[in-house]
Amino acid sequence: MSSLEPERIVRLEDDAVVLLDQRRLPDEEVELRCETAAAVADAIRVLAIRGAPAIGVAAAYGYALAAARGEDLEPAYEALASARPTAVNLAWALEEMRSDPTPERARALHHAEVERCRLMGAHAVELFSSGSRVLTHCNTGGLATGGYGTALGAIRAAWEKRLVEQVWVDETRPLLQGSRLTAWELDALGIPFSVVADGAAASLMAAGNVDCVVTGADRIAANGDTANKIGTYGLAVSARHHGIPFYVVAPTSTLDAEAAAGADIPIEQRDATEISSRFPALNPAFDVTPAELVSAIVTEHGVHMPPYAASLPLELAAGR
Amino acid sequence: MSSLEPERIVRLEDDAVVLLDQRRLPDEEVELRCETAAAVADAIRVLAIRGAPAIGVAAAYGYALAAARGEDLEPAYEALASARPTAVNLAWALEEMRSDPTPERARALHHAEVERCRLMGAHAVELFSSGSRVLTHCNTGGLATGGYGTALGAIRAAWEKRLVEQVWVDETRPLLQGSRLTAWELDALGIPFSVVADGAAASLMAAGNVDCVVTGADRIAANGDTANKIGTYGLAVSARHHGIPFYVVAPTSTLDAEAAAGADIPIEQRDATEISSRFPALNPAFDVTPAELVSAIVTEHGVHMPPYAASLPLELAAGR
Repeated sequence: MSSLEPERIVRLEDDAVVLLDQRRLPDEEVELRCETAAAVADAIRVLAIRGAPAIGVAAAYGYALAAARGEDLEPAYEALASARPTAVNLAWALEEMRSDPTPERARALHHAEVERCRLMGAHAVELFSSGSRVLTHCNTGGLATGGYGTALGAIRAAWEKRLVEQVWVDETRPLLQGSRLTAWELDALGIPFSVVADGAAASLMAAGNVDCVVTGADRIAANGDTANKIGTYGLAVSARHHGIPFYVVAPTSTLDAEAAAGADIPIEQRDATEISSRFPALNPAFDVTPAELVSAIVTEHGVHMPPYAASLPLELAAGR
Repeated sequence: MSSLEPERIVRLEDDAVVLLDQRRLPDEEVELRCETAAAVADAIRVLAIRGAPAIGVAAAYGYALAAARGEDLEPAYEALASARPTAVNLAWALEEMRSDPTPERARALHHAEVERCRLMGAHAVELFSSGSRVLTHCNTGGLATGGYGTALGAIRAAWEKRLVEQVWVDETRPLLQGSRLTAWELDALGIPFSVVADGAAASLMAAGNVDCVVTGADRIAANGDTANKIGTYGLAVSARHHGIPFYVVAPTSTLDAEAAAGADIPIEQRDATEISSRFPALNPAFDVTPAELVSAIVTEHGVHMPPYAASLPLELAAGR
């Protein structure tokens, strides 16, 4: 089984949810067997699996496992739903499972998540021209979604159409999802790439070596303001300064109708020790890129161009 | 002796050049004794001491040590001059020493370097207003100059005038000079600070938490284009986007009359393993910030405002 198959990233067996332990990548490809819903919740909490869509899938499998084992489902639900407080996908996936807590339903949910990624990729291809040198941030690949990926899925789809010449991978401090996970995925796919320090992105743009920037999103407000991994906003500012398009690729489930604008999106502050174990540090997990810096937003339904306030709410109203 | 005294950073004793080993900071304050000029050259090569002015001082002490020991001075000169190929200060300091290879001359050179920093700081103070929240990058403090510092010296001078409320310290990947060295210096000085991931700087600016950005320079072209640690250019772009002034503080010895513009400054590519030991990586050590993004350049002679092409060459012509 290839490292990047959806079943390799996370799957349900008869007696366990089995997932590729992302904490050990890229040094080791080790599977983690979770034999209870609580163990799945722990795996999510410790970041053995991360990425909003991927943890939704893992939670669905965990819930189906609890049902198959005859566990009391309410504690299982609570443990899984609270494993990462900010991820809306967890609650969404568990609600989906409640009415039909079967392995088949969980696998269908996983399959649908990967299909959404493939659709995003197919739509996003129109944004790439031949020979594209693409810069990306964090990890938005199969590891983050349970297969294929969002922004990295778009890059993969464009590469499969022979449109991508080079991928620049921000290492993405402090947790290095770029140099650890995105690099590992691109290496496995055979897509040419180089990792760079986050601070090097602007100089690559100035040198004319970046044709577009593509990132994912953690949450998108109704007006198109986009919260994503810390460092994304600075990339968008630099892209605008250099006249380089900045694209966001994210499923409709990322749209938050409750947030009118970016200011309504809470920013998680993570432990300062991720930055420095010795000195005071500030460690915001996300930043907000205002819609006016976003050249297009790609969902599974298609490519949205500005003004997003005109089209995003319609997509939400049409249902996910 | 305080950790930040010039003699603590680097000094000449009867039989050795003694320096604070910057590789061990901030975890340990360990002195390294170099009993030959070759040992000093090694210390410079392995970054036990770094920062262009500081390694010039170390080389001067190494040369004086060789003379005092009756070593053949030509090999000593060659070893010291070639310890870091791109630093012009090494060659300059050694030329100064050639005609008078005495401990007194080396100590005078060290003293003059620190005095230049104090002058830069005194001039730079006029750029700060009360309550300033200042963002800086890399390490430009006493460790980098043999005492006091350039950009960090300016921040220190402004703090001593009670003008600085908070310093934001970019951790400065890949070698973390910010979170290791600048944080250590600010902690020792009692100046309030927080370390942030390099990617967080733009969002701090967007939130209105940065009043100015102050960095050093590795080399400044005749038109004011400034080469500095990778990540500086992205800061300058973000500062401009947010209407925040971006200041460069560097001694006249950093001005390069041979370079008409930034394109004439060669950019050192460092080992990719500093970024990733496993995957392909690109690791430029510096980037170039064009003069139009620089709000002022402070040297020991005063504050230069744009257009720099009018004033910087005059300063060079007047001699260093």
